[in-house]
Amino acid sequence: MADDRNIVIVTGIPGVGKTTVINEAVEEVKQNHNESVLVLNFGTEIFQIASKKGLIEDRDHLRKMPTAKQREVQRMAGEAIAEKAKKAKVIIDTHTLIQTNNGFLIGLPEWVVRAIQPKTLVLVEADPERIAERRSSDETRTRDAQLVEDIDTHQRMCRAAATTVGTLTGATVRIIKNREGKVEEAGKELAATIME
Amino acid sequence: MADDRNIVIVTGIPGVGKTTVINEAVEEVKQNHNESVLVLNFGTEIFQIASKKGLIEDRDHLRKMPTAKQREVQRMAGEAIAEKAKKAKVIIDTHTLIQTNNGFLIGLPEWVVRAIQPKTLVLVEADPERIAERRSSDETRTRDAQLVEDIDTHQRMCRAAATTVGTLTGATVRIIKNREGKVEEAGKELAATIME
Amino acid sequence: MADDRNIVIVTGIPGVGKTTVINEAVEEVKQNHNESVLVLNFGTEIFQIASKKGLIEDRDHLRKMPTAKQREVQRMAGEAIAEKAKKAKVIIDTHTLIQTNNGFLIGLPEWVVRAIQPKTLVLVEADPERIAERRSSDETRTRDAQLVEDIDTHQRMCRAAATTVGTLTGATVRIIKNREGKVEEAGKELAATIME
Repeated sequence: MADDRNIVIVTGIPGVGKTTVINEAVEEVKQNHNESVLVLNFGTEIFQIASKKGLIEDRDHLRKMPTAKQREVQRMAGEAIAEKAKKAKVIIDTHTLIQTNNGFLIGLPEWVVRAIQPKTLVLVEADPERIAERRSSDETRTRDAQLVEDIDTHQRMCRAAATTVGTLTGATVRIIKNREGKVEEAGKELAATIME
Repeated sequence: MADDRNIVIVTGIPGVGKTTVINEAVEEVKQNHNESVLVLNFGTEIFQIASKKGLIEDRDHLRKMPTAKQREVQRMAGEAIAEKAKKAKVIIDTHTLIQTNNGFLIGLPEWVVRAIQPKTLVLVEADPERIAERRSSDETRTRDAQLVEDIDTHQRMCRAAATTVGTLTGATVRIIKNREGKVEEAGKELAATIME
Repeated sequence: MADDRNIVIVTGIPGVGKTTVINEAVEEVKQNHNESVLVLNFGTEIFQIASKKGLIEDRDHLRKMPTAKQREVQRMAGEAIAEKAKKAKVIIDTHTLIQTNNGFLIGLPEWVVRAIQPKTLVLVEADPERIAERRSSDETRTRDAQLVEDIDTHQRMCRAAATTVGTLTGATVRIIKNREGKVEEAGKELAATIME
């Protein structure tokens, strides 16, 4: 496909191993295609824009801004990323849905994805039981059935939100499974998406 | 979060116990925060707008209006609610998806949610088997496997539609489980969302 | 409902039996209501528009056009279909999500569905195990657990994308099960949607 889009959004819930998969993919692209990929963290981009505009002093201030202001900064960060993507292949490391005390926060609202116009939205997923284990490994070893169900729900809700992003922007939606002990495979799949 | 939004949309399929949860939450907010919450039924608001504009005489007329007219009235109802929410905390009691003979009808279309700009969209959910029991309790006691599956599908489709509303408006999406005999807990969660 | 919309979009993943269901429904409408239904394939409509505009010579060229051009042609095809629907009942035979090497491709992006303004989006579904069987029947008879899971995921993702289309356009979303040996029933359901 003669696609003029250069941005792949990579998302995954905590414990899924997203960062490792991204690192694998970037390495793969470097080794096999001799190309470098710019990995941007969406939160960091927002903070930089807001600082530059003199809107905030530290990251905590971000969430204290009025909603309309927050949106504007998010949109501007999206546009800044789109600008960078004119010169390089870009991965945006972010979240589809963020679990908060007040439910799922939308990580990829309309005004952001319209500015970014991603080629593909990747959902890095893992088995809910494995995610639960990883999250609790440093503490107790109890496997909590409720936690596993909540993780499963979170991943499924992310899939739904991803199809909305696809419908609004035309981005393809790709699920990449990060299977136990097979992170290289997941990295190769992500590399293929970057090079597509 | 310094949110200037005041509206919580509360949805749930028939038999989920939505009204009881809302009542619990309103009572909780009154008791513990000394604040009153305005509970609005979306259907009633639409009817009032349409009557005031002289468009209809009774509620049955609503669905007989041309699509474009229906939408306009829905949008106006959304705006009227947004206006009321400037002076009070508001709950909108409505549906995400309504089961009809011709499939799922969209309860929260784009033109409505853009007008409302909700803070949070709440999905009150219950176990599909319990919902099936409640719905059939007055008649036979047979538990119908097909009915349970249909209820499960309905709840899952509502989740998907809710993520679309979130993506378009930035509203958080909160699932509140109305567990058997634990309606107070569900009410407390909803009260927390209202006061957030 | 006094609906002035005339278009039903019918989708289903490969192996679900979509074409048979459509044929059954068209026959049913002809027999019982003495009305004919115009069945349009969305891909063909796009090709015709693009050819007429002198943009491409054969169908393979379609995917090689720049993204912006592809979108424009898709939107124009949507508008052409909407025009045809002023004089006849129309079924659009297409896909909600298409499985590609780079994930799920959006079959019903925003700019298409806004142009079409469908009355109903139908998801023809079948049991994932049956779909897997049908797809592999000509080759080996092995039932691949991974394939069944992938088919299930595909159908669920289509449901999510369908709720987005509904939210954007107000179309109802109807799931029609094409059960083994009961294609007539499925056809009757689709006929009811067409005549609704």
